[in-house]
Amino acid sequence: MTTHVRVVGTGLIGTSLGIALCNNGFRVSLDDPSPTAVRLARDLGAGELASEDDAPDVVVVAAPPDVVSGVIVAALREWPHAVVTDVASVKESILREVLAAGVEASHYVGSHPMAGRERSGTAAARGDLFDGRAWVVVPHPDSTAEATDQVTRLATAVGSAVRVMPAHEHDEAVAAVSHVPQLAASIIAATLRELPESAVGLAGQGLRDVTRIAASDPRLWTQILAGNASAVRDVLHEVQGQVAAVVEALDGLVDAGGEGSLGTLSRVLEAGNLGHARIPGKHGAAPAAYELVSVVVPDEPGALARLLTNVGEAGINLEDLHIEHGLGQAVGIADIAVVPASVEPLHDALERLGWRVQD
Amino acid sequence: MTTHVRVVGTGLIGTSLGIALCNNGFRVSLDDPSPTAVRLARDLGAGELASEDDAPDVVVVAAPPDVVSGVIVAALREWPHAVVTDVASVKESILREVLAAGVEASHYVGSHPMAGRERSGTAAARGDLFDGRAWVVVPHPDSTAEATDQVTRLATAVGSAVRVMPAHEHDEAVAAVSHVPQLAASIIAATLRELPESAVGLAGQGLRDVTRIAASDPRLWTQILAGNASAVRDVLHEVQGQVAAVVEALDGLVDAGGEGSLGTLSRVLEAGNLGHARIPGKHGAAPAAYELVSVVVPDEPGALARLLTNVGEAGINLEDLHIEHGLGQAVGIADIAVVPASVEPLHDALERLGWRVQD
Repeated sequence: MTTHVRVVGTGLIGTSLGIALCNNGFRVSLDDPSPTAVRLARDLGAGELASEDDAPDVVVVAAPPDVVSGVIVAALREWPHAVVTDVASVKESILREVLAAGVEASHYVGSHPMAGRERSGTAAARGDLFDGRAWVVVPHPDSTAEATDQVTRLATAVGSAVRVMPAHEHDEAVAAVSHVPQLAASIIAATLRELPESAVGLAGQGLRDVTRIAASDPRLWTQILAGNASAVRDVLHEVQGQVAAVVEALDGLVDAGGEGSLGTLSRVLEAGNLGHARIPGKHGAAPAAYELVSVVVPDEPGALARLLTNVGEAGINLEDLHIEHGLGQAVGIADIAVVPASVEPLHDALERLGWRVQD
Repeated sequence: MTTHVRVVGTGLIGTSLGIALCNNGFRVSLDDPSPTAVRLARDLGAGELASEDDAPDVVVVAAPPDVVSGVIVAALREWPHAVVTDVASVKESILREVLAAGVEASHYVGSHPMAGRERSGTAAARGDLFDGRAWVVVPHPDSTAEATDQVTRLATAVGSAVRVMPAHEHDEAVAAVSHVPQLAASIIAATLRELPESAVGLAGQGLRDVTRIAASDPRLWTQILAGNASAVRDVLHEVQGQVAAVVEALDGLVDAGGEGSLGTLSRVLEAGNLGHARIPGKHGAAPAAYELVSVVVPDEPGALARLLTNVGEAGINLEDLHIEHGLGQAVGIADIAVVPASVEPLHDALERLGWRVQD
């Protein structure tokens, strides 16, 4: 018998989820304070408009972070037999507020689909937004196993890879792998505001990568950071300590020229090597030590495609790809990451086809 | 008549430069304290072995940052009529040491080819290392115009795009666009060392981008940072101030729940938006507001190539490309950056060809 899912909040995530669930045989009813948003969501195929006498099996709260706990509590009161979950990117503060409301919460299980886009809003919704993304399911001590299973089924149905962990563990994890890196990217990008044109003109791929997510939406991120303030602060304290150590080391070099300073700098850089090596590779597998093959690519439609066609024809699986744009010249450098065993075959195959390969 | 270039130091940069110069009709003589390195450089086609009675027109010092100034001074003494330059990534401290040596330095012009690789050493050399990269030429007040022109000719001959600026301006620029971002990437990556597997398992493309350069060589970077300590410290002070402001704001939220704290967070994130918008686009052009078209790509050899072939056939020029690896699933998301006018045509063309396009 068809599972009836009520989606409350038809922004990017709620509408995308509605579409994905409808595509996978669920019955979806849509609710949003904005009549315009909810009708647009319906027209996009996210489900039917909610009606008074609905009795949903699952309620997914996809409201903005700063109001989500109130909506969860209201849903638990209105549908005591439904499983209620939310999709906010912070979990412990929301759980605390829900439990503080004194409502029966054994049917509440938090969740966090790690999917999003630069654009937000109903119109940006896509049914495959959750394809191949992680979806963290966050039960609390009183959550029923049935509630956790129900949310897991939902996440799996829309193509996500489920991870189950408690709220504090989730919040500490995203503080380190998402929230503090966002702050770092924003703070580093902010230092570029007053630079002369000639200086920003020297920007290379390194700076572009470090600051790419600095383009994210400040309003959303302010709510996310505020909602995870405690865990973010803990990680940021560690960062603050390291920055202070480096500043002190640089002071030593500028004012004294002390040898100990070099030790501090290299320790920080080595610690970075070690931390970087822990980031999982493709598909969450153990980090593989890929090697780069760098190829000069003319800046014309199809050039990169021709290159990657040749890579594919050589039977070599490209693990990752970075494009370094030439400065003031009509060429770019494509850095192709492959497993070490593929470096020489790829190198030879591409050179035979006339590509300028750097290694 | 052929220009004779003496390359002193046959590591990655020196050897690559030798190969590039030989390919472009220069005569190159090679010198290095290591007989093994210099012979390997010769065998790679970087030039001939240096001999006693050489009289080079130009001397390029490609020694490690911490010894380069001494080698420059020796070269100015040995060949008073030759133009002498170096390729170190910091310039003011080196210039100061050269001028302090009391040698006639009007023929010295610093330079910094902004090219490099993850790998270092003679064996990693490539003749096209400088193709399409920026090369900063750094004259000092007493440099002759002829010396500046000679170095500019060299850089242009190997395919680089020349920028001319004074040493302090160069050092302040690279402190902001390269050295501090390197420190930020290393410090953020370092916070991952003690994380549980379940936490690093949630790493997404944002973290991968922010920390990519944290894999760089600590020994080289310790020398670079030490050589530019003063300029790096100035930028890092700004970073330190912003980190402190954010920590204070988070304290306010955790301990008080103060509204002012939200203002601080959103100001930092907005400043990041503004700074990010200043980074030049492709080929050093004004930053273009590209839009992303996200496509689901099966993880198999040639799949990405097939996609980009279709992009090329649609006559659309891909401006940039990021691959988001699905977590625990055999699909990835290719984010294709194109000019806004190309979004709809590309979207339609790819969907017609059966691609799952997210926008």
